[in-house]
Amino acid sequence: MTGVRIAGTGHTRFGQFPERTGRDLFAEAADGAIEGAGVDRGDVEALFYGNFMGEVAEDQGHQAPLMAEMAGIRAPATRFESACASSGVAVREAVKDIRNGESDVVLVGGAERMTNLGTAGATKALSIAADELFEIRAGMNFPGAYALMAQAYFDEYGGDREDLAHIAVKNHENALENESAQYRTAISVEDVLEAPPVAEPLGLYDACPITDGASAIVLVSDAYADREGIDAPVSISGTGQGSDRMALADREYLARTPAATVAAEEAYADAGVGPDEVGVAEVHDCFTIAEVLAIESLGFFEHGEGIGAARAGETTRDGRLPVNLSGGLKAKGHPVGATGTSQIIELASVLSGDHVNSDAVPDATVGLAHNAGGTVASTTVHVLEVGE
Amino acid sequence: MTGVRIAGTGHTRFGQFPERTGRDLFAEAADGAIEGAGVDRGDVEALFYGNFMGEVAEDQGHQAPLMAEMAGIRAPATRFESACASSGVAVREAVKDIRNGESDVVLVGGAERMTNLGTAGATKALSIAADELFEIRAGMNFPGAYALMAQAYFDEYGGDREDLAHIAVKNHENALENESAQYRTAISVEDVLEAPPVAEPLGLYDACPITDGASAIVLVSDAYADREGIDAPVSISGTGQGSDRMALADREYLARTPAATVAAEEAYADAGVGPDEVGVAEVHDCFTIAEVLAIESLGFFEHGEGIGAARAGETTRDGRLPVNLSGGLKAKGHPVGATGTSQIIELASVLSGDHVNSDAVPDATVGLAHNAGGTVASTTVHVLEVGE
Repeated sequence: MTGVRIAGTGHTRFGQFPERTGRDLFAEAADGAIEGAGVDRGDVEALFYGNFMGEVAEDQGHQAPLMAEMAGIRAPATRFESACASSGVAVREAVKDIRNGESDVVLVGGAERMTNLGTAGATKALSIAADELFEIRAGMNFPGAYALMAQAYFDEYGGDREDLAHIAVKNHENALENESAQYRTAISVEDVLEAPPVAEPLGLYDACPITDGASAIVLVSDAYADREGIDAPVSISGTGQGSDRMALADREYLARTPAATVAAEEAYADAGVGPDEVGVAEVHDCFTIAEVLAIESLGFFEHGEGIGAARAGETTRDGRLPVNLSGGLKAKGHPVGATGTSQIIELASVLSGDHVNSDAVPDATVGLAHNAGGTVASTTVHVLEVGE
Repeated sequence: MTGVRIAGTGHTRFGQFPERTGRDLFAEAADGAIEGAGVDRGDVEALFYGNFMGEVAEDQGHQAPLMAEMAGIRAPATRFESACASSGVAVREAVKDIRNGESDVVLVGGAERMTNLGTAGATKALSIAADELFEIRAGMNFPGAYALMAQAYFDEYGGDREDLAHIAVKNHENALENESAQYRTAISVEDVLEAPPVAEPLGLYDACPITDGASAIVLVSDAYADREGIDAPVSISGTGQGSDRMALADREYLARTPAATVAAEEAYADAGVGPDEVGVAEVHDCFTIAEVLAIESLGFFEHGEGIGAARAGETTRDGRLPVNLSGGLKAKGHPVGATGTSQIIELASVLSGDHVNSDAVPDATVGLAHNAGGTVASTTVHVLEVGE
């Protein structure tokens, strides 16, 4: 079975670009990835593409062939939708495609246009990732859902809003020099605690923003990289996927995300590494509490221990396991369909020493990316490793 | 590489069920497939699911984990969207997953709820499968797009409305005894010619209906079928996928669908058969002209020769290559996300001798299913073979 190497990456700036279309954003990202890899467009054998709300935000479904066209490739194109994990799922299928000898060169990526809907419109559009019959009609939205999860966590394990605030502060700090990030401003714990409440116990600064953006990666087989002399030191060595029941009311726990544990166990076994070997992680912090649930479900912290990690400096850039050196969804932004590939791009950059924050983890050789849909009803985990 | 066997199938009746939800429809189809296969739900390792307009029709995205729950399985669940080819793409990825040893048992299927939108609402929702910027804003919808293709075909190769009418008549005739079909009524050539015009040269009876429904298949590896003693005589032996530019204005020809040719060539090579060996086909006849374009692009007829095939009796049940013995999209109905798996279910039933129309092709051992998205900007082709 061949290895799967990251040959090139492309990334728009994440931010508010309501005048740009999804196709325009993806064309920029795809160009960056293809030109960065130095591959011939005729060599690209497939596009695996993630998008969540194109039907609602742009009246544009059937985006896969459209995005292949925007990328200047003629190849079978497949769209994956798994809410906020859409491009994580696309990456997983791309990895399998290369490993299984179906393709040597795959373009994988995602895009989302959201800010043209406005904050209320985008929040409503995001809600279609929850259970329409049993959650949305009852008035649930995602800030409310994650607030329930945060409250359940506090009830079961303890912790408080200030613990969560340290996560937001950390992720904003990490984004300060990241040119892709939507927010490059430092915030304080007081800023977070004094921000307007969104859904108790979460305030405005516990939530990621509404974002436009796109990201893309060219993945290649070992044989192709060697033959074409492509410098691609970072590989995706493990992939895992998990699903859970859709509605929170049907879950056994609100304070755990078992789909992430299933996905992580599969990815660790696939890569032949354990959580102790992971030196840096990008996790799906759509809300501050989501980062806590992630780092516990991924095996980095025991259940109940993740809540204090940022505050204690364990997940900060000088900690034992820096989490979201990119700034995370919280500060880098969260253009839904683009997030899964963006996490892997940032992680690959960190591991290869090219990232503005690479100096935080000079010895890291293994990284992990965790992408989640809805209230983690779907999730993917990928393990990345850098060679010489 | 293992073979991929059809172990069980499930199918709702196709029709107008505006009071039923997508999840309810899929639960029925999935139950039928799982119970028909006789597999333990715990053995199902993945759900690959196709849906097109859930976000618009039901405010329900992120359907894959929801549908896994409705099917009573706990497994990674992935949603594919490729307009009307959504579950064709899901089947393709499921076939690859089993072949590559990722899974021994996969549930694949699709569902669509449409009639709750009304005809105008559903037509508008369908239009998001075309290019929003360059087609939809200019007033294009799918009846209009296929009318352009029909007119281009007539201009280039000849043919007339009466040739097309024979396709509608044939497909209604085929559906008469099909209990899954939406329309089980015979129509005449005169009925078609006298029906209200929809978009010249197409009339009401040249178009498939708006439909609710679901379909599902349990696919298993050879080893699993043998070990569990599952009677599964029909295999999916070839898979292919093609993409084209989205907008008709960007195509070289309007009277050809090259994405289907690419997909067919891949599927034939994969199965090691040619078009001459195919004894029965289900093709994507969303409009009568689409059947003509399909049977030519798939290699059954030369370009310009397909138009007269139904009229000459070549594709009728007593012809040399019966096409759409199920009734096709035209008469069986077209619940978009369910169509790709439905075609394969009908074809498997025909090949195994269980279909009401199996007696039309007693000697057929090879069948082909062609599923298309938009104006064939995306397409999948699958070859099925029956063993002893």
